[in-house]
Amino acid sequence: MDATRVEIIGIGAGDPDHVTVGAVAAMTRADVFFFLDKPDAAGELSDLRQVILDAHVPAGGYRLARVQDPQRVRTEAGYGEAVADWRKRRADACERLIADNLAPGETGAFLVWGDPSLYDSIISVVDDIRARGNLEFEVLVHPGISSVSALAARCHTTLNQVGGAVQVTTGRRLEQAWPDGVDDVVVMLDARDAYLAYANDPDIHIHWGAYVGTADEIIVSGPLSEVAEQIRDTREKARQDKGWIMDTYLLRRKRSSVD
Amino acid sequence: MDATRVEIIGIGAGDPDHVTVGAVAAMTRADVFFFLDKPDAAGELSDLRQVILDAHVPAGGYRLARVQDPQRVRTEAGYGEAVADWRKRRADACERLIADNLAPGETGAFLVWGDPSLYDSIISVVDDIRARGNLEFEVLVHPGISSVSALAARCHTTLNQVGGAVQVTTGRRLEQAWPDGVDDVVVMLDARDAYLAYANDPDIHIHWGAYVGTADEIIVSGPLSEVAEQIRDTREKARQDKGWIMDTYLLRRKRSSVD
Repeated sequence: MDATRVEIIGIGAGDPDHVTVGAVAAMTRADVFFFLDKPDAAGELSDLRQVILDAHVPAGGYRLARVQDPQRVRTEAGYGEAVADWRKRRADACERLIADNLAPGETGAFLVWGDPSLYDSIISVVDDIRARGNLEFEVLVHPGISSVSALAARCHTTLNQVGGAVQVTTGRRLEQAWPDGVDDVVVMLDARDAYLAYANDPDIHIHWGAYVGTADEIIVSGPLSEVAEQIRDTREKARQDKGWIMDTYLLRRKRSSVD
Repeated sequence: MDATRVEIIGIGAGDPDHVTVGAVAAMTRADVFFFLDKPDAAGELSDLRQVILDAHVPAGGYRLARVQDPQRVRTEAGYGEAVADWRKRRADACERLIADNLAPGETGAFLVWGDPSLYDSIISVVDDIRARGNLEFEVLVHPGISSVSALAARCHTTLNQVGGAVQVTTGRRLEQAWPDGVDDVVVMLDARDAYLAYANDPDIHIHWGAYVGTADEIIVSGPLSEVAEQIRDTREKARQDKGWIMDTYLLRRKRSSVD
């Protein structure tokens, strides 16, 4: 009998053309897909997964197994504690999902937006489930095109300046301070318009993109001091219109010298 | 007549399965591929491009246009100056390559190892050529799976810790100092075994990979203090055996607290 297998498949940030040949092959051979559904309008993300499946596995022939994705509880407890609790509840939900829907010798798959290695928890969740030892399965991870790569390609830009470093960080961290020692900062998961804190700096350029690679794509590039308000307004309107937003941006500070 | 076009196509880090569906389509419609050949054994990189072409455009029907890739001159001049000169000579070479080999209405393509947005100069070179105004063409960039994403997938790891930042940097910079404010560091372009500087730190874990996704793939993961010498010896031997090495690594420092 074939090994029971769980595959974690990066499917890119929305453009069906950004899916890899290996991901298409993996989607084609999977017996069942595990969908974690968000309770709010971000459920559209599940629909986007279905768009990718329809584009690349038009013949169907697979099963879908869905569960409500446990939400992070926003309490007075520390951020780390809340995240650890969230991770445990996600592992519980996913373990049940696998136990109830994956027969021995079958292959089940999680479709991950972007690249599973950047700001996604499925790799850790599956790792936790294996460590518990209740279920036995092999794991295979397929890298994907992240929203960062998609944005850079769309803007014809590199992420680093010559010989320089790039920091990939969160809106939460950027709001606290500009990262030390880097001129190029990629921001993911910014729910608070953290770039506004730097809108008075005349030496910062921004490439901002939402829903990159999809029909709803919006791109704004320019000197941050000139486009910051336009981006804030565009974000706000897009979030209201669609009910959710998925965006990324690159901030580039002019280097005083090439060191 | 169709627009004359130059496409910059990320082809992943060696595994033909990591090529995107969009990149395959772009390779299939290109009239001519521009290959920059290195003078040394790293010319095998051009051969690897040919492996990807053979895998995904088996029918052929394209032309190849090759030129010697100008090398960086290692002089007493500053690093920045040397890089600027190198970039100009690469733009000269690529401008001639395009002018001599791309007819109006045709599509020419550069195949870029990994993702064009990370530590690759073709996007800047093509930008420079357009700015000169001698040639007229449209540009399209296709993102690719970087060696970083490929390594993370292979090691079943994420690049960031929960809510944390990641810095992508060079061996040259890491050797000078551990980047401020981050616990996760991805190193590309390390010609000097910079990780050895941290081999006495008991709290650092390394995922190191060479030729990731190819038949020659080598992966070493573990506490840096235990595997640093093994990696150094493995690199040295691989470099001697093949004449070149293409590797990447992730250093992860245990976080004192989730902040």
